[in-house]
Amino acid sequence: MNPSTIFHLLGFLNLILAGSMVLPLIVNWIYGESHARGYLLSMAVTGATGLLLMLIFKKSSRELSHRDGFAIVALGWVLATFFGALPYLFTGAFTSLVDACFETASGFTTTGSTMMTDIAKNPQAILFWRALTQWLGGMGIILLSLAILPLLGIGGMQLYKAEVPGPTADKLRPRMTQTARILWQVYLLISAAQVVTLLFGGMNLFDSVCHTFTTMATGGFSPKNESIEFYRSPFLEYAITFYMFVAGANFSLHYRVLKGEPLALFRDPEFRFYLAVVLFSTLLIMANLFGAGLYKSLLDCFRLALFQVVSIQTTTGYTSVDFEKWPAFSQYLLLLLMFIGGCAGSTGGAIKCVRILILLKHGARELKQLIHPHAVIPVKLGGKILSSGTLHGVWALSFLYMVVLVLSSLAVSLLGTDILTAVSAVATTLGNTGPGLAEVGPMDNFAHLHPASKWILTFCMLCGRLEIFTLLILFVPEFWRK
Amino acid sequence: MNPSTIFHLLGFLNLILAGSMVLPLIVNWIYGESHARGYLLSMAVTGATGLLLMLIFKKSSRELSHRDGFAIVALGWVLATFFGALPYLFTGAFTSLVDACFETASGFTTTGSTMMTDIAKNPQAILFWRALTQWLGGMGIILLSLAILPLLGIGGMQLYKAEVPGPTADKLRPRMTQTARILWQVYLLISAAQVVTLLFGGMNLFDSVCHTFTTMATGGFSPKNESIEFYRSPFLEYAITFYMFVAGANFSLHYRVLKGEPLALFRDPEFRFYLAVVLFSTLLIMANLFGAGLYKSLLDCFRLALFQVVSIQTTTGYTSVDFEKWPAFSQYLLLLLMFIGGCAGSTGGAIKCVRILILLKHGARELKQLIHPHAVIPVKLGGKILSSGTLHGVWALSFLYMVVLVLSSLAVSLLGTDILTAVSAVATTLGNTGPGLAEVGPMDNFAHLHPASKWILTFCMLCGRLEIFTLLILFVPEFWRK
Repeated sequence: MNPSTIFHLLGFLNLILAGSMVLPLIVNWIYGESHARGYLLSMAVTGATGLLLMLIFKKSSRELSHRDGFAIVALGWVLATFFGALPYLFTGAFTSLVDACFETASGFTTTGSTMMTDIAKNPQAILFWRALTQWLGGMGIILLSLAILPLLGIGGMQLYKAEVPGPTADKLRPRMTQTARILWQVYLLISAAQVVTLLFGGMNLFDSVCHTFTTMATGGFSPKNESIEFYRSPFLEYAITFYMFVAGANFSLHYRVLKGEPLALFRDPEFRFYLAVVLFSTLLIMANLFGAGLYKSLLDCFRLALFQVVSIQTTTGYTSVDFEKWPAFSQYLLLLLMFIGGCAGSTGGAIKCVRILILLKHGARELKQLIHPHAVIPVKLGGKILSSGTLHGVWALSFLYMVVLVLSSLAVSLLGTDILTAVSAVATTLGNTGPGLAEVGPMDNFAHLHPASKWILTFCMLCGRLEIFTLLILFVPEFWRK
Repeated sequence: MNPSTIFHLLGFLNLILAGSMVLPLIVNWIYGESHARGYLLSMAVTGATGLLLMLIFKKSSRELSHRDGFAIVALGWVLATFFGALPYLFTGAFTSLVDACFETASGFTTTGSTMMTDIAKNPQAILFWRALTQWLGGMGIILLSLAILPLLGIGGMQLYKAEVPGPTADKLRPRMTQTARILWQVYLLISAAQVVTLLFGGMNLFDSVCHTFTTMATGGFSPKNESIEFYRSPFLEYAITFYMFVAGANFSLHYRVLKGEPLALFRDPEFRFYLAVVLFSTLLIMANLFGAGLYKSLLDCFRLALFQVVSIQTTTGYTSVDFEKWPAFSQYLLLLLMFIGGCAGSTGGAIKCVRILILLKHGARELKQLIHPHAVIPVKLGGKILSSGTLHGVWALSFLYMVVLVLSSLAVSLLGTDILTAVSAVATTLGNTGPGLAEVGPMDNFAHLHPASKWILTFCMLCGRLEIFTLLILFVPEFWRK
């Protein structure tokens, strides 16, 4: 371990965070709001802490080890959760620490579950900060999933080291900066395109920027209480559906498409699986809604089903309709999509398409193996044989995901909710999705839960975002031993 | 494949089944009931079909292959489901085919979910047949799990081939008969002990025999509408708790205990885990019940919690109280226990303790592996290193278990139930437990479900009982190819 460098880098992260607080301050001035002191104080505290950390702890010349990588990633997100909560607390948007931390974690992990009971009554600058945390979180996640995690060997993600010939790093330092720069350019470019599209669709500039921030991050925070339903515009719904779908796909592939390889997406087995799940689920829900006679035309059923499927599967979490009024089958299918999630290398959360695909292929392999007990049948993805280590990583991650789900939802139910609320609250936070079912449904919020439940769900958001292992590893005593 | 021998053996199974129908016929005479014709007709049809099969298809001299083994096991249980339903249909206990088949499958798979809306109004002979199907199913399961499945290499069960030095077979033919005989003697002996215990506790002979049949099989059918709550006897509750616990443990270990190795149980890692889960869950639920102020004394809370935990975890499914009146936490914990189930080599169902234990150990190994990426860290059970093949089998089985759960409960919810009813109905049938939650709770039955849901749940009972693979493999086209 290299604690000095770890704290030095965490200090640097704090400086970036403090710097980003300039933006809500500007919004505060533009809209003539009265919370400048709150933002300045947040910046001062965050920045000073960062500077102190950087001055006290010097960067050593040693290379960072695996363990250092884990510590930086996990502590970085935890730190951002606390310091990012300061603008909420110092402007009075939240008065309780847990509510402010929950909202911040929900931002930086791009979850989108909220503690706000009346979103629209907040100052514009707070709504902007809230959206910005998601956009910054999205940037962090791209860096994490395409440049850092594969090096740390998390749950089969090492796959991407070898598989994606695009801008992925193969050593922790040399190419990481370059990789990050390229991917963030792609992220910025698509964000800019979305702002233009939303403006074209009649959304005002502030809402367009906020929604772009939270779409690209598959976050789902909206400055409107009614989320996307507010606009009642099929054009905007389709446009946002498109950008959510893009944000839920691998950004390495987007880079290749932009570089002039339009078929790169369709050659990727994970993308094909992702597309298939979206289309299949949409058709099932469309038929279910049409059969139940909930909407007049089949096209309405299609639009609403497509929007909600993409929103939940990419783990964005916007709503264009109160889907708790839908039949149990549709709601249950949405709940299941929360577990699948987006593609690896996207801003989407949950178990991720590539892992579900590998689990399915492996399950089928074992069936074939029973028929031919002496044959050697490899598990392949995109023509390549998956190693035993990759398979073990995928299996263990999926199982630990379920263990965290079960233990957390048991605790939440003990703190006074029904089973469906407990399970869906944990599934939606662990999957970084946003809305759940029952008491935490699309038209509800998380404010009425027990404070201890809020901390548990905050833990789930971080745990899900850091691919389980990265956070759980901190609880293994061996991790801290020399 | 060796179809001739397969059908010959299935015919023989039908003959045994026809023979066992003599018993309800005798009960019918003892109690002076009027359905002798129904039982005789069932025997005639079942026996004649068996004889025809045996006469048409000759036993070939060839050894049975893996695939033959799968076909015999899976088709055997399917056949028993149909022919075992005849006594219900011919005596008029059920008028619909699906209800009769559901009840029969629930018997032979030792599930215990029922289609009967008023159990006690049925003739004694029908209640006896119902209990007998479970006891016979339990015998079949012991044979299956300790003698046949390990040879077929199902989901890590090959573990037992090497691990249990007791009476396990290592070739499909030579020692199987001997293994079966020894284990059935143990089964009979413990059954006899339970009848005596229940008689001593004041239960009448008929009820004692029926309850013993369904306890030893961890089946859970009771001749009483109120299940064990009917007797309001703490002695009987503790006694039945003890025998359920015994039936949920590995019968190979019981054999060794009876042979004079009393510590064999406690040296087995699976048994220790099984015991730990039971005790820990009991304490949690006891505290939850006591905290909620539902019962006067802590001892009452303990007794009711212990009974229900053992009943659900062993997948028996008796009830001594309406646990749907318990807090959400307790209900949710019971729902989770339905997934864990009993020990391998017991009559209990679900994923089984040994597999859950392996999953946990493997998850912990992967965490350690991340800390020491270059170390070779084996997954051990009882001091022995588990092979990669064993791990793959366990993972794939657990995943396919979840796939069947998800697809089946989606279908059941589509046919008109809420999510909790759909999930718990599938979890309880797939785990061969018995009662579910919500609309299929401990005081309800499955009669009001859609007929298609009943067939799906019947499939789940067979699928769970045959360790998923054995039934799913029949749906792989390759299985049927030369």
